[in-house]
Amino acid sequence: MQASSDLNNQNISSYGSPTRTFYESFEQVDLESGVRLGPLTVAYETYGQLSPGKDNVVLILHALSGDAHAAGMTENGRVGWWDGMIGPGKGVDTNKYFVICSNCLGGCKGTTGPPSPNPLTGKPYGRSFPRITIRDMVNVQAMLIERLGISKLHSVVGGSMGGMQALDWATRFPGKVKSAVVIAATARLSPQGIAFNWVGRNAIYSDPISACGTPEVDSDSVRMGRGLAVARMIGHITYLSEEIMERKFGRKLTLKDMDGIRYSLGENEIGSGEFEVESYLEHQGAKFMERFDEDSYIIITKAIDYFDLESQYGDLTRAFSTVESKMLVLSFTSDWLYPTSMSLAIVRALQTLKKNVSFVELDMPFGHDSFLIPAAMPKLTRIMRGFLNGV
Amino acid sequence: MQASSDLNNQNISSYGSPTRTFYESFEQVDLESGVRLGPLTVAYETYGQLSPGKDNVVLILHALSGDAHAAGMTENGRVGWWDGMIGPGKGVDTNKYFVICSNCLGGCKGTTGPPSPNPLTGKPYGRSFPRITIRDMVNVQAMLIERLGISKLHSVVGGSMGGMQALDWATRFPGKVKSAVVIAATARLSPQGIAFNWVGRNAIYSDPISACGTPEVDSDSVRMGRGLAVARMIGHITYLSEEIMERKFGRKLTLKDMDGIRYSLGENEIGSGEFEVESYLEHQGAKFMERFDEDSYIIITKAIDYFDLESQYGDLTRAFSTVESKMLVLSFTSDWLYPTSMSLAIVRALQTLKKNVSFVELDMPFGHDSFLIPAAMPKLTRIMRGFLNGV
Repeated sequence: MQASSDLNNQNISSYGSPTRTFYESFEQVDLESGVRLGPLTVAYETYGQLSPGKDNVVLILHALSGDAHAAGMTENGRVGWWDGMIGPGKGVDTNKYFVICSNCLGGCKGTTGPPSPNPLTGKPYGRSFPRITIRDMVNVQAMLIERLGISKLHSVVGGSMGGMQALDWATRFPGKVKSAVVIAATARLSPQGIAFNWVGRNAIYSDPISACGTPEVDSDSVRMGRGLAVARMIGHITYLSEEIMERKFGRKLTLKDMDGIRYSLGENEIGSGEFEVESYLEHQGAKFMERFDEDSYIIITKAIDYFDLESQYGDLTRAFSTVESKMLVLSFTSDWLYPTSMSLAIVRALQTLKKNVSFVELDMPFGHDSFLIPAAMPKLTRIMRGFLNGV
Repeated sequence: MQASSDLNNQNISSYGSPTRTFYESFEQVDLESGVRLGPLTVAYETYGQLSPGKDNVVLILHALSGDAHAAGMTENGRVGWWDGMIGPGKGVDTNKYFVICSNCLGGCKGTTGPPSPNPLTGKPYGRSFPRITIRDMVNVQAMLIERLGISKLHSVVGGSMGGMQALDWATRFPGKVKSAVVIAATARLSPQGIAFNWVGRNAIYSDPISACGTPEVDSDSVRMGRGLAVARMIGHITYLSEEIMERKFGRKLTLKDMDGIRYSLGENEIGSGEFEVESYLEHQGAKFMERFDEDSYIIITKAIDYFDLESQYGDLTRAFSTVESKMLVLSFTSDWLYPTSMSLAIVRALQTLKKNVSFVELDMPFGHDSFLIPAAMPKLTRIMRGFLNGV
């Protein structure tokens, strides 16, 4: 555990020493469901220097598969998921801002989640982990911010699930967030989005390891326990646009000597996608299996599915009536999972309430994941810098 | 086996006696891969009366999950998948036309496919079934038509995979098809379509039954062998439009007493989708497991993935240079899997060649499956009737 007093002595990781993960412990959190969960650990990273007035803090909120390592490089060379945006002179300029990113509640990268030990049994929670909501995640972030002695955030910034959290911050903690950036997000997931998440979870439920509940891996077979990989592959299709798939892969085959068709299905295709797009997805699925936990995937997608500010408050103008933050809403033309229409629903409600809201639809071909793509950074950087400096 | 001489004595099933399945046997078929497959059985149904000149035949070509039972009702009450379109006075009028629909090669409803016994082993082919192509399917259809003594078809009509077959018929058998109707189809599947099929097959490969290769079902668990259900669920999401999902299910919950969230994931969600869209997909997946074969699913989706008239001929104008049929191409505004742009690519190539082609984009909200939806029948019927009568 790292004491929060260290906050002022942290290096800017991008410039030299590797990033460090810090941890804070809490006795418990009362979940929206009424369940009390604890003890609790929150993992987080920070970049930049906290100002003496503690008034330069930007809280970064990660998406479904993200974690606290948003920027810089770890000791073993892993670069943060938004390193293109966060750093000295970057869109979220660590020469100015003190940036915090914590792993979400229910995650599997240091913050308490299904892989964490259940204090009652000493074994991992697994699927007995209580159901959590986006609100619960935000409440835990708020506990962390309070523990660090920060009373007001310069901004909360999140894409996808992180954007849902940014909306919740602005809605429920109006006095604590000067501004919020909501990227490729929605106030309620579409039934299509729910459907994709459901099928992904079903792929996990259907795999042998999940079915047996035991992590016995048959070393002769790569087929065991691949449900999470299938779920990730489904996700990846929805994160990309058809246009970028066509440009990136088209119908190109991985094997050159195939004459258009192969002559037998043989054993099966696993690990040997014949089309490049298959091979890409296979790779993404395999990588994800190494770094993510299937029960975290289940618990977090459920939280995303149930996020619905409309039904929770009656309608969006009621939901946002409390908002005091300066708001920036960003969407991408090619995002068919969280399309611009969903961002516009947020913007219109805020405009109806005469809140301070800016909206930009970025013409980008990369789909939902556009905010993570290096090619999108120049445009995004200009927008983010302008917005954060104007707060 | 039913002799083809029976052809003139069949009842119009919609009007009384149940539909019957007929079978023809063939010694072998030479597959595009070079593999020789045989012996071979083809299952088919017919509706209406064959004219003395055998010149009133409409061949219906089913989609991925279809079969020979296109119209009328079986003895146990199953209604054909296109009963709204085929029958007396309907869009494909059985008072005028003699309609044939055969189960495709590789299928699991009477025509030789993975569940059929391999004559060399006496056991089902399963995954040792040779890889087949859309061309192979069409070649088997052509063998059937020849066996039935029919030298020229009034029309070939197919949607989705059936539309691919209709294109292949018009391209390779110009003297045998007076007209072709290509509905919600494409001359080449998009990488996104390939990706969805790949993930569906991976769900099958990842399930315990497939992994073990043995159909042992654990009666205490519904989780076993659900890969095909997951694949079907993925398919179903892509067959529907976001708009119709929103209209049909929205974010409605199946359980009324949930207060927006449930308090524990409990065992897991299988068979108990909490959102209506989940419950719908679960139902579709479960139904499909009862009626379809997972190896047929694999072999047929591979055939669809590899269909690519552009790469096969160099470009579409070369592919269609032989076409003599009157062509009708139909697409649906809400079809994001086989979007209108794909139909237009076909139409433009035919127009460049000054072929006789009509194109209609139907403004319908039901997605790719629009051509199967009862609500679409009135519009579709007018178009089909006009086209078939004008041939």
